[in-house]
Amino acid sequence: MTREDGRPELRRDPLIGGWTIVAPGRSRRPGGGTGARTVKGPCPFCPGNERLTPPEVWAEGEKGRRRDGPGWEIRVFPNLYPALAEAPSAVGKVGRRTLPANGYHEVIVHSPHHDLALARMDPEPAFRLMRAYRLRYRELCRRPGVRQVLIILNHGREAGASLEHPHTQVFALPLVPGAVREELRRLRRAGSRGCPLCAAVEEARREGRTVLENGSFAALAPFSARQPYETWFVPLRHREDFSRAGEKELRGLADILRRTLRGLNELLDDPPYNLWLHSAPCGEEHPYYHWHLELIPRLAVTAGFEMASGMFINPVPPEEAARRLAEAVG
Amino acid sequence: MTREDGRPELRRDPLIGGWTIVAPGRSRRPGGGTGARTVKGPCPFCPGNERLTPPEVWAEGEKGRRRDGPGWEIRVFPNLYPALAEAPSAVGKVGRRTLPANGYHEVIVHSPHHDLALARMDPEPAFRLMRAYRLRYRELCRRPGVRQVLIILNHGREAGASLEHPHTQVFALPLVPGAVREELRRLRRAGSRGCPLCAAVEEARREGRTVLENGSFAALAPFSARQPYETWFVPLRHREDFSRAGEKELRGLADILRRTLRGLNELLDDPPYNLWLHSAPCGEEHPYYHWHLELIPRLAVTAGFEMASGMFINPVPPEEAARRLAEAVG
Repeated sequence: MTREDGRPELRRDPLIGGWTIVAPGRSRRPGGGTGARTVKGPCPFCPGNERLTPPEVWAEGEKGRRRDGPGWEIRVFPNLYPALAEAPSAVGKVGRRTLPANGYHEVIVHSPHHDLALARMDPEPAFRLMRAYRLRYRELCRRPGVRQVLIILNHGREAGASLEHPHTQVFALPLVPGAVREELRRLRRAGSRGCPLCAAVEEARREGRTVLENGSFAALAPFSARQPYETWFVPLRHREDFSRAGEKELRGLADILRRTLRGLNELLDDPPYNLWLHSAPCGEEHPYYHWHLELIPRLAVTAGFEMASGMFINPVPPEEAARRLAEAVG
Repeated sequence: MTREDGRPELRRDPLIGGWTIVAPGRSRRPGGGTGARTVKGPCPFCPGNERLTPPEVWAEGEKGRRRDGPGWEIRVFPNLYPALAEAPSAVGKVGRRTLPANGYHEVIVHSPHHDLALARMDPEPAFRLMRAYRLRYRELCRRPGVRQVLIILNHGREAGASLEHPHTQVFALPLVPGAVREELRRLRRAGSRGCPLCAAVEEARREGRTVLENGSFAALAPFSARQPYETWFVPLRHREDFSRAGEKELRGLADILRRTLRGLNELLDDPPYNLWLHSAPCGEEHPYYHWHLELIPRLAVTAGFEMASGMFINPVPPEEAARRLAEAVG
């Protein structure tokens, strides 16, 4: 049963095994689950409208600017419709099939500019955005009870973005979600045979699936890409933990994201996409893990087959997608 | 590398572990993965247009009707853009990370009527449709190399239906897909503690999550429903295998599907949905398994969080969804 105070709750399914966040408060957000997605009125993420968001937790901008006033370049605040409830500790009483959905759900607004997509940001602001990712990642990972921090960028309505102004969401969870757990399991098992993600970079080079490389990252179409133009961004240096990425790596990440996204825009006319960062669980030792980002353009509707099977059907061979995208990146 | 004859190929991901069907032929279908979904011209599923589909493999209709002519009530043929390739045997050479995507991909057209959704079918034709499901299930399960048959109904564009005329797809796969494998694992593990799906029926009764029951099925909102109004249809008799469902059960299934779908229409104004059937792998012994159907209305766009975590956020508590839907079912 849902907890009576309406707080979100994590529920585990006995058949499927996965966890769901039952979050009644989310139904109040624009288009929140049961109706059309309509956002009326002024953009709450634009400068001058700061009163429309919860108070900020961090911002970067002009010296001497007033908190929750304009003059910022990047601004972070709790999501108005959080999927997770802030609590003194994210640790909660674990039931046989429930867990309080304690944690943090933040929004990082990329810039004051309503129409400036990450693809078109200049190198320096894009680097500062990556630095803000790392800052929030580090900060939230340190809080009691947080086991996993996910950084997620939804671009475009069809990708689930309910507001147009470019922003990123940060989820700090009290458990290691299934998708990360599965990666941990596979990378640990590969063990002495070497890291599958390091191998994926080599294989992509050999098999013509590299989109782009710079000094610190490879962008590649994975061998079994789930969707057309699925792209992974893999740091060339094997490291388990995003929080230890240095300035050179953050600049490299900003560079490869911008260039790949520009290529996608060239090729597919500003497609909606989801982009997310996977790093090892907070404060744990998983030396075999390799942090990375995954990007999936939302070109096709996933249908019953994906739900029924847990598999995907991809009509564009990744070799072909990588070749076209590499050409578009130029 | 994609096989040079353009045949579909199954690829396993070393990081994520899941399988993807890389099916270049699918990109030719309407809206096939990389563009807008536009279907022009006459409906290929309407009577009189049989020449627009591959030759039928089975049909039910008037006595003495000509094959691939009109006069049918239900018609089955191979999908024009198959995700799986027919082969003498579905068994193929297994590579370290590939498997030929051999199998069968069929379409069952529900009725000659272009606008007759399952929700509005009369009891007798709906029963005959369920019987056709069982017939194709049995037939395809028997073929060499087929390990799993999935029956999937996508309703509405937002649910991935590329054609409006009500139809169901049948996928006969050369492997047990991840979603079924996970259920098998959990149900086997539960073992002596009793079947979790039988328990789910009891729990739903106790906790107010039953939508509807008839003599042979329960429709319920699962405890950790992934999406608002997710509904499971569970046979009250524990059986592993859909192919052994009897006439009474098929009539009960038609009845509970029709009534639940009418309730959903009442409540949500003809929502798009995915509906699929899970049964134990073909010809194997899994007495702990419990066949069933799962339905998810497509009310919200799944976004980066679901992809990044493998989890779901559901803004409508299943207790509330079940209560509302039970009222609408009347």
